[in-house]
Amino acid sequence: MSYTPPVKEMMFVMEELAGLARISQLSGLADSNADTAQAILDEGAKLAAEVIAPLNAAGDQRPSEWRDGMVTATPGFSDAYRQYTEGGWQGISHPVEFGGQGLAKLIASPCIEMLNASNLSFALCPLLTDGAIEALLTAGSEELKARFLPKLVEGAWTGTMNLTEPQAGSDLSLVRSRAEPQGDGTYKVSGTKIFITWGEHDMAENIVHLVLARTPNAPEGVKGISLFLVPKFLLNDDGSLGARNDVHCVSIEHKLGIKASPTAVLQYGDKGGAIGYLVGEENRGLEYMFIMMNAARFGVGLQGIALSDAAYQKAAEYAKERIQSRPVDGSDAGSVAIIRHPDVRRMLGTMRALTEGARALAYVAAAHADFAHHDEDAASRARHQAINEYLVPIVKGWSTEMAVDITSLGVQVHGGMGFIEETGAAQFYRDARILSIYEGTTAIQANDLVGRKTLRDSGAAAHALLEEIDATLESLRSTDAGDAARVFEAVHRRLADGREALANVVAYVLESGKRDPNAVFAGGVPYLKLAGIVLSGWQMARALLAAQRKRAEDPQFYGAKIATAHCFSEYVLTQARGLETAIVCAHGDDPLFALNEAQF
Amino acid sequence: MSYTPPVKEMMFVMEELAGLARISQLSGLADSNADTAQAILDEGAKLAAEVIAPLNAAGDQRPSEWRDGMVTATPGFSDAYRQYTEGGWQGISHPVEFGGQGLAKLIASPCIEMLNASNLSFALCPLLTDGAIEALLTAGSEELKARFLPKLVEGAWTGTMNLTEPQAGSDLSLVRSRAEPQGDGTYKVSGTKIFITWGEHDMAENIVHLVLARTPNAPEGVKGISLFLVPKFLLNDDGSLGARNDVHCVSIEHKLGIKASPTAVLQYGDKGGAIGYLVGEENRGLEYMFIMMNAARFGVGLQGIALSDAAYQKAAEYAKERIQSRPVDGSDAGSVAIIRHPDVRRMLGTMRALTEGARALAYVAAAHADFAHHDEDAASRARHQAINEYLVPIVKGWSTEMAVDITSLGVQVHGGMGFIEETGAAQFYRDARILSIYEGTTAIQANDLVGRKTLRDSGAAAHALLEEIDATLESLRSTDAGDAARVFEAVHRRLADGREALANVVAYVLESGKRDPNAVFAGGVPYLKLAGIVLSGWQMARALLAAQRKRAEDPQFYGAKIATAHCFSEYVLTQARGLETAIVCAHGDDPLFALNEAQF
Repeated sequence: MSYTPPVKEMMFVMEELAGLARISQLSGLADSNADTAQAILDEGAKLAAEVIAPLNAAGDQRPSEWRDGMVTATPGFSDAYRQYTEGGWQGISHPVEFGGQGLAKLIASPCIEMLNASNLSFALCPLLTDGAIEALLTAGSEELKARFLPKLVEGAWTGTMNLTEPQAGSDLSLVRSRAEPQGDGTYKVSGTKIFITWGEHDMAENIVHLVLARTPNAPEGVKGISLFLVPKFLLNDDGSLGARNDVHCVSIEHKLGIKASPTAVLQYGDKGGAIGYLVGEENRGLEYMFIMMNAARFGVGLQGIALSDAAYQKAAEYAKERIQSRPVDGSDAGSVAIIRHPDVRRMLGTMRALTEGARALAYVAAAHADFAHHDEDAASRARHQAINEYLVPIVKGWSTEMAVDITSLGVQVHGGMGFIEETGAAQFYRDARILSIYEGTTAIQANDLVGRKTLRDSGAAAHALLEEIDATLESLRSTDAGDAARVFEAVHRRLADGREALANVVAYVLESGKRDPNAVFAGGVPYLKLAGIVLSGWQMARALLAAQRKRAEDPQFYGAKIATAHCFSEYVLTQARGLETAIVCAHGDDPLFALNEAQF
Repeated sequence: MSYTPPVKEMMFVMEELAGLARISQLSGLADSNADTAQAILDEGAKLAAEVIAPLNAAGDQRPSEWRDGMVTATPGFSDAYRQYTEGGWQGISHPVEFGGQGLAKLIASPCIEMLNASNLSFALCPLLTDGAIEALLTAGSEELKARFLPKLVEGAWTGTMNLTEPQAGSDLSLVRSRAEPQGDGTYKVSGTKIFITWGEHDMAENIVHLVLARTPNAPEGVKGISLFLVPKFLLNDDGSLGARNDVHCVSIEHKLGIKASPTAVLQYGDKGGAIGYLVGEENRGLEYMFIMMNAARFGVGLQGIALSDAAYQKAAEYAKERIQSRPVDGSDAGSVAIIRHPDVRRMLGTMRALTEGARALAYVAAAHADFAHHDEDAASRARHQAINEYLVPIVKGWSTEMAVDITSLGVQVHGGMGFIEETGAAQFYRDARILSIYEGTTAIQANDLVGRKTLRDSGAAAHALLEEIDATLESLRSTDAGDAARVFEAVHRRLADGREALANVVAYVLESGKRDPNAVFAGGVPYLKLAGIVLSGWQMARALLAAQRKRAEDPQFYGAKIATAHCFSEYVLTQARGLETAIVCAHGDDPLFALNEAQF
C-alpha cells in the first residue's frame, strides 16, 4: 500500500482548530481560504501519493551516490523534483514578489506534512531551500534577493544550511571556517562543513549554500559569526550560471536512515577560496540563522507528524489484513484479523491519538505565525509571535520524540515482518531517528524552552496558553454532550490534571531556574514532553468539542475523532503527573549530579 | 572503544541480591560458589571482550551470505565459535552427565549477558542451542538424548527452534507442517518454516532442528502439534555423520538488525521428506516448546539487558570525550565534555538505572529457577517455580522494551554522530528492535502475565512478591542511613507508591479479567511495564540497602550504586501511577473499542 494524505483530517484541523477562516481575513491572505486550501491539498495529495511516495523505498534501497565529487540522486528523484517545481510547490508560502504564491503558513503546513510522509529524504531538499529563502528574506540585501530568490522560490536552485563542523555541532561558538574580505564586496570562504543535507546533488542547476564563518578579527564565540551566501556556480551579470565556485563535496555519510538524502562533507576554499557574499551585517550570523532555524525546526516537527502518520497508516492496514489468534473475549471461535486484539488496538489507538494531537498543535502554531506576520494590530502580532516562539521547540521536540516511539510501535504491530526490510515499517523507524537530533537535539529545544521561552518572559507565553486551556476546560464542562457525556467527563478530568501538572512545572522553572540551573535543565526534556502532552491533549479536547458539534454531518469521521480524543486522554495525558514528579523531585538534590564522571 | 563486561557489578548482584551463597548450598550446586563465579566471569569477560566483541561491527557490515542453499557466516565468526566451544561455554549450566559443567543458572546468566553484549548476532547461535538442549532434556527419549545431547552440549552441533510458518506466527494453532510416520519409528517431515535463527550456517558440523508439525489425523489447533528432531545430517549407527537430510535453506532474510545472524527460510521434504524423530509424545509439542521457550524468553530478556549495557558504555565514553558548549551553571567559561550537561546526565543516568534494575531482576529470577530445580523441599520448589514463571514474561518483555528505549537514548547522546553507521550506536538501536518481537512479542508476554501468571493462580505469585516488597520497604525505614537518609526517604516514597500502583492493578486484573477481557488485556502491556518498573525498582532499593552497608569498602562503586538507585526512583518509578491510571481507566468504557475497524 501507499500513503494516503489525510486531507479531510487536515481540513478539519485547519478550519476547526487553527482558525483558517480568520486567517483568510488577515491583510494579504485573502486567498488563504477554505476553498483554496481544499483545492491545494487535493492537488498536493495527488503529487505526494502518486509521484513522490512510490520513490520512498527505492531511495532507501539505492541511496544517493558520490563519485569524484559529484552526487547522483536515486533514479526517479530528479524527474519527481521537476514535477514538484513545475507545480509551483516550492513557492507556496513565499512572497508573490519573488514568484511565490504568498499563501498562509497554515496552508503550507499540510503540504509540507504530506510531502514528508511520502518521502522524507526527498522532502528534505525543498525544506532546506525554504530555510535559505527565509534567511535571504530576513537579512539579504536587495541585490542578493533579486539575484537569488526568484530561482530559489521557483525551485530551479536549491538551498542548504552550513552550520556544523567536526568540532562544532550544538556548540556553534566553536565554528572555525574563515571568510576573508576581498575589497570588492566579496569574501573568500574556507573551511570544512559536515552534515550538509543535500549539500551536493544533480537535481537542480545550482545550489545556494548559506554558510556560517568568521571574518578576520571577529570576536570569539557566537558573537563573531557571520552568514555568507556561497553558490555552487557563480552568476554572470545577467544572472546566468558562470564559473564553478571553490566548494566541493568530498564525501557523503553512510547513515541509519534518510539514505536517499545525501549528507555531504563540503570543503570550502581548497583551491584558493570560495567566493561568498555577506548576508546582512557582519557578526550577526547566528541571529539570522536562528530566524531561519525557527522555520526549519517547525518543519522538522511536521516531519515527525508526517512519519508518524505514514507509519500508522501502514500498521493499520497490516492489522486489518493479518489473521492470527482467537479474540480474547471469545467473540469468534477462529483466528481473526489482529486489529481485533486489544494490544494491537492499544498500539494503533496510541499512534493515532499522538499523531492527531501533535498535528493539531503544529497547525495551531502555524496559525500563530500567520497572525504574527499579518495581523494589523502590533500588540496582537507580538502576542502571537511570543506564543509561536514558545510552541516551536515543543512542536519540534515533542513531535519528533513521539515519531521515534510511533514508528517503533509501527514495527511492533507488524511482528516479525516488521523487522524484515522489504516490509517498509523498518524504514520509517530508521528515518525517524534523525528527527530528534538534527536542527537542534531535543535537549537543545528544551534549553530553548526553559531559557529563552520561559525564564526570559517570566512565563508570560506559558501562562497565556494555560488560560486558553482553562477556557477549553470550561467549554467541556458547560457543553451538553449527550451520549458522549462520559467521554467529556474523562477528557475534562485528565486535561485538568495535565494542566495543573504543567502549571506546577512552569512555576518550578520560574522559581528555580536561576538558583538551581542544573536541576531545572535536567528537567528540561521532561518539561518539553509534558508541555507536548498537555498542549496536544488540549487540542484533542478542542477537537472533541468540534466533533461533537458536527457529529451528525459525518458520524463515522467525527465519531472516530471523539474516540481518539478519549484515547489521548486515557493513554497519553495520564503520563503528565509522572513527568511533573520527575521534574520537581530534585530541588537541589538531583541524583544525576551525585555521580562523578568516573562513576559513569 | 570495546565493551567491558561489568564483572564487579555482576558479582554484586549475584551475591547481594540473588543469594549466590545460598544457591551454592543447594543439592548439586556446591561448585556454584562465589570463587568459581568470579573465576568464570573473569574468563568469560576475556573471551567476550577480546574475541567476540571485535567481530560485532564486522557482522553488521558483512552479514552472513546465502548461496545455493549454503550460508557462510561473517569472516571470523567460525574461528570465534571454535574458541567459544573449546572453552566449554556452551555446557556451562547443562548436566555433567552430557558433558556440561552443571553450574547454576545464576552463574550462566552473566555469561550469557556478556556474550550478548559483545555480539548479539553471534550469541544467538548458542542461545538457540541451549533451547534445543532444554527441549531434549525435558522430553527426549534416552536414545535421542544419548545420540544428540553430548554434541549439542559441547557446541560441536548447534540447535534451532522451528515454530513459525508464513501464516502461523504468534498463532501456532495455524501450523501446517506435516509429519508422516514411516512405520520404523521415524517420520517424514514436510513444510515451510520461516524466521529460523541460525537455521543454516557453516560454523558447526551439524544442525539439530526442533520442528513443530502435525501427524495425520492429529486434532486441529494447538492440541494437534507434535515436536520433531530433524538433523541436517542423519547419524550413522556409530553416531558419525551420515546422509544429508531433506531440509534446505531456500533463502535468508534482509533485516533491520542482527544481520550476521542468518534468519533462514527452511524447506522440509521437497525431495521426499526429511527424516525426523518424535520428541516425547505425539500432540504434546506445544507443551514441550513452552518449557523450552521459558528458558529462551529469559535468555532474550538477558539480551535486552546486554544491549542496554553495551549502548550505555558506548554513550558514557563518548560523553566524556566530546567537548561542546559551556555548562549551564556557569562553572566553566569554556566548552566542556558533554557529560557535564544536565540532559546528557539525565539520559546516561536513566540508561544506567534501567539497565541495573533489569539486570538485578533477571538474576533474581535465575536464582528462583535454581531453587525451583535444586531445593530439596518440594513446597519450596513449587513456590520458587511459580515466582520464576511470573517473572519470566516480565524479564523478557520489560528488559526488551527498555532496550529499545535505551539504545535510542544511546544514539541521542551521540547527537549527529549517532546517526552515522560507523559510530556503532545505530547498530545497537537496530539490533535491539527484534528483542521485543521474537520469542513472543511483548503483547504475547503480557497475555501470559495476565492469563497464565495472574488470573490462573488468583494472583498468588504477584501477592508473594508484593509481600517481599513490603519487607524491603520496612528495611528502608528501619535502617540508619546516615548521610544517605534523604536518598532512603525518596526511594521509600517512590517504591511505596509504585507498590500500591502494582497492587491496585493486580486487584483490577483479578476482578475484571473474566468480566471485561478486552479492557484487561488492553492493559496487559502497561501492566507488564508497571510490573517491570516496580520490581526493578524494588531490586534497586535492595541494592541501595546493600550498598549502604558496604559503602566504606569501596566508596566509588557503592556510592555510584546509591546514586543510581536514587535515579531509578525519581526518573523511572515516578511513571508507575500514570500506568496504573491508564490500565484501570477503562473499566468497560475503553475508547479503543469505541472505534470500528474502518475508522482506523
